[in-house]
Amino acid sequence: MPRYTAPAKDMQFILQEVLSASTSDVPGYDEMDADTTAAIIEEAGKLASEVLQPLNEIGDTVGCTLENGVVRTPEGFKDAFEQLKEGGWTGLDCDPEYGGQGMPYLMGTAVGEAFVSANMAFNMYQGLTHGAYSAIHVHGTEQQKQTYLPKLVSCDWTGTMNLTEPHAGTDLGMMRTKAEPQEDGTYAITGQKIFISAGEHDLADNIIHLVLAKIPGGPEGVKGISLFIVPKFIVNEDGSLGARNGVSVGKIEEKMGIHGNSTCVMNYDGATGYLLGDANKGMRAMFTMMNEARLGVGLQGYAQAEVAYQNALDYAQDRLQGRDITGVKNPDGPADPIIVHPDVRRNLLDQKSFTEGSRAFTYWCAHLIDRSHRLDDAEAEGIVSLMIPVLKGFCTDKGFESTINAQQVYGGHGYIEEWGMSQFARDARIAMIYEGANGVQALDLVGRKLSQDGGKHVMAFFEMIKTYCKEHSEDSAMAEFVEPLKSASKDLQAAAQYFMMNGMKNPNNALAGSYDFMHLMGHVCLALMWARMAKTAQDALASGASDTSFYETKLATARYYMARQLPATKMHLARIESGADPVMTLEAANF
Amino acid sequence: MPRYTAPAKDMQFILQEVLSASTSDVPGYDEMDADTTAAIIEEAGKLASEVLQPLNEIGDTVGCTLENGVVRTPEGFKDAFEQLKEGGWTGLDCDPEYGGQGMPYLMGTAVGEAFVSANMAFNMYQGLTHGAYSAIHVHGTEQQKQTYLPKLVSCDWTGTMNLTEPHAGTDLGMMRTKAEPQEDGTYAITGQKIFISAGEHDLADNIIHLVLAKIPGGPEGVKGISLFIVPKFIVNEDGSLGARNGVSVGKIEEKMGIHGNSTCVMNYDGATGYLLGDANKGMRAMFTMMNEARLGVGLQGYAQAEVAYQNALDYAQDRLQGRDITGVKNPDGPADPIIVHPDVRRNLLDQKSFTEGSRAFTYWCAHLIDRSHRLDDAEAEGIVSLMIPVLKGFCTDKGFESTINAQQVYGGHGYIEEWGMSQFARDARIAMIYEGANGVQALDLVGRKLSQDGGKHVMAFFEMIKTYCKEHSEDSAMAEFVEPLKSASKDLQAAAQYFMMNGMKNPNNALAGSYDFMHLMGHVCLALMWARMAKTAQDALASGASDTSFYETKLATARYYMARQLPATKMHLARIESGADPVMTLEAANF
Repeated sequence: MPRYTAPAKDMQFILQEVLSASTSDVPGYDEMDADTTAAIIEEAGKLASEVLQPLNEIGDTVGCTLENGVVRTPEGFKDAFEQLKEGGWTGLDCDPEYGGQGMPYLMGTAVGEAFVSANMAFNMYQGLTHGAYSAIHVHGTEQQKQTYLPKLVSCDWTGTMNLTEPHAGTDLGMMRTKAEPQEDGTYAITGQKIFISAGEHDLADNIIHLVLAKIPGGPEGVKGISLFIVPKFIVNEDGSLGARNGVSVGKIEEKMGIHGNSTCVMNYDGATGYLLGDANKGMRAMFTMMNEARLGVGLQGYAQAEVAYQNALDYAQDRLQGRDITGVKNPDGPADPIIVHPDVRRNLLDQKSFTEGSRAFTYWCAHLIDRSHRLDDAEAEGIVSLMIPVLKGFCTDKGFESTINAQQVYGGHGYIEEWGMSQFARDARIAMIYEGANGVQALDLVGRKLSQDGGKHVMAFFEMIKTYCKEHSEDSAMAEFVEPLKSASKDLQAAAQYFMMNGMKNPNNALAGSYDFMHLMGHVCLALMWARMAKTAQDALASGASDTSFYETKLATARYYMARQLPATKMHLARIESGADPVMTLEAANF
Repeated sequence: MPRYTAPAKDMQFILQEVLSASTSDVPGYDEMDADTTAAIIEEAGKLASEVLQPLNEIGDTVGCTLENGVVRTPEGFKDAFEQLKEGGWTGLDCDPEYGGQGMPYLMGTAVGEAFVSANMAFNMYQGLTHGAYSAIHVHGTEQQKQTYLPKLVSCDWTGTMNLTEPHAGTDLGMMRTKAEPQEDGTYAITGQKIFISAGEHDLADNIIHLVLAKIPGGPEGVKGISLFIVPKFIVNEDGSLGARNGVSVGKIEEKMGIHGNSTCVMNYDGATGYLLGDANKGMRAMFTMMNEARLGVGLQGYAQAEVAYQNALDYAQDRLQGRDITGVKNPDGPADPIIVHPDVRRNLLDQKSFTEGSRAFTYWCAHLIDRSHRLDDAEAEGIVSLMIPVLKGFCTDKGFESTINAQQVYGGHGYIEEWGMSQFARDARIAMIYEGANGVQALDLVGRKLSQDGGKHVMAFFEMIKTYCKEHSEDSAMAEFVEPLKSASKDLQAAAQYFMMNGMKNPNNALAGSYDFMHLMGHVCLALMWARMAKTAQDALASGASDTSFYETKLATARYYMARQLPATKMHLARIESGADPVMTLEAANF
């Protein structure tokens, strides 16, 4: 059976040494002193290893069941959810005014990583609730906030997000769910929504559905979409639960993975809904939550890779098979552990350098979100809006690939369900799809974010890298990290340049390269992170840090990333520079 | 529900136009005239689409069950297996002396592709039987051949391959199953084998297990391994079935996929075994079958990608979502089909150019095996022994990746089991693992095949590409294909050169790059195939072939491969040239 241990030291390294959280100027970061973050990570890690991880297997094998309209989560989920609530984890980074603990989003992100690694399907119940909390917190009326937020912060009630319909996924403008205005100011919501995670379950007394729908007579397409609060039970004025609302679960889907989370078809039959935010501005309301939601999914990508890596590493250190070609390492045993074999190491280091790089990337983006929210830092907001599609697309694609690689370390045992590696792979697969499939992330990046505000944000990012390289240009010990970063960033700039020169006359010259651009940029971001981590490690070693092997391992892993991962940028650039023709020439009928 | 249609025209294109089978000098190829191969493919395709494919879903959802020592295959499997037998498909390329039809292996490979695409788990029952047939055909005594071959050719009995033990997978030298010589010349086989595909089932009257075991007192390690025939029921002298042998199924494994095939733990408890081939030469006997077995698994890689592609293409042409950015394509509908979007096309063309290239590569290797067997062509045998690890490793890695990409086209629906794309992905995953995990293929390629016979075979391969490029150097219409091939093959030669220069002083300089070398070489092989296919298409167009769109599509797909896939070679070379250090520096304890 697989195990999970929160990588507390690596997490602290990013929080305290790379991002210097405790000395940051962001309001609230003064609470993130090293002792506090260490204690929080330790407690979260304990809950993750001891409570959530042991339920991961039953979540997969038993999953959720629907009987007579009632969805049951697997045995043990309810108890674990209570422990999560009692520990105050559900409101860690929520507004104290509504019962939250007010910690920075960065702290919530680190804790979230441990929970997702331990049990991704389970953690979605609170993750979606957090999303509903954010939407109501930003767009709700005072009364709506008072009514819903305390219960969402505590997870006494959970939340959902209802966007997709059978014929309307990426193209939400085609949605048909309608919201008829009623005399009392409410709306009657009618329609069918699909793929609703945590749409129905037995973990909470009430479920607060956020539903996109069209008010008849409104504008066509996405400009006529509004957002509604549709509680499973109507909330009385005194806060008690009233009548059952006209929303019901149609079925739960049989999925490839995340069986512990109920993915529901939800039927709305004249259900009472309350407008959230302005009429016809539903998409805008959704967008304000999108950065956090997509960061959360990108995190799922590397968090699954992390737990898969931990177990693959255990296996590689235990499994005896063959001998080190350069000399026996385990003379008393019948064979050497397979970690002696170069290709097993190559595989493990691909995983390790990816997950650690992605952790730094994700925490950095969470930090930028804090800057944007708590300091009104417009530059941080601009950069993070550019990074989010990269984080979501790159970290979930590579996270899945990394999880598959971890499974591969097990040989035949990796394919057998009881070893747990298959579940990691099947669970990780969804992150490439939901919250905007990765092709849509690439489109968002190249079709929208690159040119946003006149291209200001991508210019700022290039400038950031240039400045970083310049600052370290005299530091000969850093050359082995700075030079590859510089070279990779030149590839990225050349790609952006190609889009600028050729996208005007034919936008397909840019769009045909969008996916490659997303990956190219992902590599540059991780290279920047590895350069920063390497510098931090060098400084620590220079100042006589006691744990030399920790920092030397960081340097070795940084070198691996530069030597073995970063060469991908030239391949992506070559693909991009081949332009639209190879992709667009063939008639659809001739595929 | 997914569908499958055998790509008859593409198959014929390779057989008749690219490989010119009907005019080949290989004995038996005279039976492969265009009409005959077309008729065979049509009939096989019909069986695949109408009988095997409709059983693919139940194979997955119901799978095999074990009760009281009896394994039941899913409903419908037995009938389908009878149809396969009645049609003579199981003995298509088997020796006529034992009831086979004597067709070339190439023909069997094309037919096998259709069956594997339609139902991979089902086809394994006959695939393993074919392996047992080959082993006994090559190594059996006359009496063994007479006893077993006719029944294996007809699939009245099926076969299995028993190698792995719980503690001995790749490292077979550690196996413990023992074979005690008995006074009557038989052996008593005792031990446990795991991961035995088709180890027990209800499709045949008898199951002929080929079992690797050690005769006590023999040499240590792999040099003391012998191969035994262990029938489930002892065969009487008159050919009738006698006593139940001491072999039983311990359990069937819960796997990620291929649920329609029973993967068994087999317990041997003093079972009667008959030595096959020479004592202590079991590994050599296994090796003679390895080329075909590994080709068969490589084929599974692209055959799953093929069926996944067919369905992804249907979906992309049907699903309406968004609009073509350069102008509406479906003005009467609410949106355009998603195949208008550049990134969806990029995804589909990655799949299409891979599967068609791999088909050509696989058929070419099958043709080389025919040359080696039917013409005793030593050069063909040398080349194919070099190609096999590439075919197995590259086509299964890329085949899985391609299947995942096909699943991605479906968005959220791809994750829901009822759409069938998840099964393709889960089934395809095994091909990267069994029959030698892909890391072992890379080791075989770089540690063994490159230097085999003084490096003669890899030199011959380089010479083949050089000659090809030279032959077409004056042909300006071919330049767009020959130039990228030449450049990619230079990368491959540079990588081989790097291994030669640096592998002597430290073998890890080669082994740390083995996986990248396997992929680099895979790309060069597919580029060679695409160049050959492009030339064939150009010739057909020049000679006034009527189906211009078929040949123009081949040219467009060849261009895509050169522009969008081949740039990977430089990335692999850069990774290789970083040598052993990035991979070997870190102490195992510090991972």
